[in-house]
Amino acid sequence: MNNVLTEFAGLYEKFESQFNNRHFPEKPEKLYDAAEHYLSLRGKRIRPVLCLMGNELFAPLKQDAFFAANAIELFHNFTLVHDDIMDHAVLRRGHQTVHKLYGESTALLAGDVMLIQAYDYLSKINTTHLPKVLSLFADAAKKVCEGQQLDMEFENRDHVSLDDYVNMISLKTSVLLAASLRIGSVLGGAGPANQENLYSFGKNLGIAFQIQDDYLDAFGNAEKFGKKHGGDIMSNKKTFLHLRAMNVLEDGKKVEYAKLLQGNDETKIEPIIRIYRSCGVDEWAKKLKQKYFDLALKHLEEVAVVSVRKNSLIHLAESLMERQS
Amino acid sequence: MNNVLTEFAGLYEKFESQFNNRHFPEKPEKLYDAAEHYLSLRGKRIRPVLCLMGNELFAPLKQDAFFAANAIELFHNFTLVHDDIMDHAVLRRGHQTVHKLYGESTALLAGDVMLIQAYDYLSKINTTHLPKVLSLFADAAKKVCEGQQLDMEFENRDHVSLDDYVNMISLKTSVLLAASLRIGSVLGGAGPANQENLYSFGKNLGIAFQIQDDYLDAFGNAEKFGKKHGGDIMSNKKTFLHLRAMNVLEDGKKVEYAKLLQGNDETKIEPIIRIYRSCGVDEWAKKLKQKYFDLALKHLEEVAVVSVRKNSLIHLAESLMERQS
Repeated sequence: MNNVLTEFAGLYEKFESQFNNRHFPEKPEKLYDAAEHYLSLRGKRIRPVLCLMGNELFAPLKQDAFFAANAIELFHNFTLVHDDIMDHAVLRRGHQTVHKLYGESTALLAGDVMLIQAYDYLSKINTTHLPKVLSLFADAAKKVCEGQQLDMEFENRDHVSLDDYVNMISLKTSVLLAASLRIGSVLGGAGPANQENLYSFGKNLGIAFQIQDDYLDAFGNAEKFGKKHGGDIMSNKKTFLHLRAMNVLEDGKKVEYAKLLQGNDETKIEPIIRIYRSCGVDEWAKKLKQKYFDLALKHLEEVAVVSVRKNSLIHLAESLMERQS
Repeated sequence: MNNVLTEFAGLYEKFESQFNNRHFPEKPEKLYDAAEHYLSLRGKRIRPVLCLMGNELFAPLKQDAFFAANAIELFHNFTLVHDDIMDHAVLRRGHQTVHKLYGESTALLAGDVMLIQAYDYLSKINTTHLPKVLSLFADAAKKVCEGQQLDMEFENRDHVSLDDYVNMISLKTSVLLAASLRIGSVLGGAGPANQENLYSFGKNLGIAFQIQDDYLDAFGNAEKFGKKHGGDIMSNKKTFLHLRAMNVLEDGKKVEYAKLLQGNDETKIEPIIRIYRSCGVDEWAKKLKQKYFDLALKHLEEVAVVSVRKNSLIHLAESLMERQS
């Protein structure tokens, strides 16, 4: 655990020391204060650090990797601002959301300038790799929007298959993790096969992480996890656990489950968790997570660099998987 | 007038023949149908044609200019989708707005993918000019967002100075016209001085055009103009005419004007136009428009190419100024 902290913390600090400034002019004040809001709250910065790690796997860190990392973090925060408008979210990282503080129209525009600023950072990258990086970035950016669209559509659909859900999660969250690594590796000079294996590593790791996130919501130690216990259950989110339960519950139990879903208060959380346990959703989710995690590591193994160089990525992946109780 | 029609129509057709296709994949259907909606309604395509004209001023048309023109038209339509959400607009080009047809969340996301797709077209430009084009594009894109923010803020402010209004109009509409020309000229190989004069030509032309737009709303031949007579007056828009009236009306007349502004029906239109005429707002606006138009032409004169090459731009500028009754 110490190693990964040092490795991650080292790159985090390097990233932060050049990112933790204003990214926008002073005026118009309201627009650009709104655009700075989430950036100044800091975040885990996993995506930009993955980009730097992708570079370091193949070559010493380059300035271009910082431009790309800045763009990726700007893009990620742009999606948070716009998603929060769509989801009518009130809080983010314990603070008021941008649209709650500045109004929906300014939040919408602030998101727009954040996306433009992301591309402004990319445009500083040396032309040797610029077209490739732009194309990988656009591909990931479109997929993230597609994922958000599918996520919204699934909320209003009765039946969602597990494959559809995995596809949506890949688009909405995994693809950006994967692209961050791949863009970093391009800037480090990686060849196509290495780029693709790193991309697959990131994509499968992201799916494993989402399964764990869903698992912890119901079965995790809420205090350690840092999120409210049963929050997904309260909001009737179509999680991995829900979809599995719908697939395996017998008809009688399914009726009971459907009735519980209609509840509007916290008393429904524990009975639903009991139903999950009764049909083995907890063990199933653990196994599924392990399947995607193993697949991720298999792709990392295929990356043709001396294995010691991969340690920081392996440590980071393991620490992401260790968040459970 | 025939010349300009031929010149404009020729480039319009060349642009349209490669733009009038789907720009997005089939799925997710709702997201990408929303993104295609305004694009398929066609438009005047003034900005992309200006980009092509900027190229043609210095060199034969290049494929890169079409990539840039596509990006500019995508960007322009992205701003329409997001502006319509912010303005709660119901109609655009005689059709339902994107958010009315597909819902606000999908419209928001559709705008986002349109902006990403704009950059995807830019990324195909040869690396010789790519960084410069990206930087000019980002500069214009941010300014357009700043203009929309200021426009919204002005609606809720009691006093707006004429200088503030000209600045807002420049940002919101002129800068993109100017940047379209300049980006085209960069791709045609223009040097910095020529680029800047073209930019100033476009910027001043845009301001003249907006003054005319405000003028025609009150004093134009509504049928010929194709917009509803007095629409700006009905919605209490802070136009050039309004700001001038506020500056020059005597106190007594100002009270009468302020009372009329509070009206909610069409009976207020004619009395307000009479007040405008009584203090010479109509003649003032004509002169102001001419001032910016002359300034635009002066900058075009400074562009160092044989004057016959400038004819299509002069003709287009004149035809834009001829829309009045």
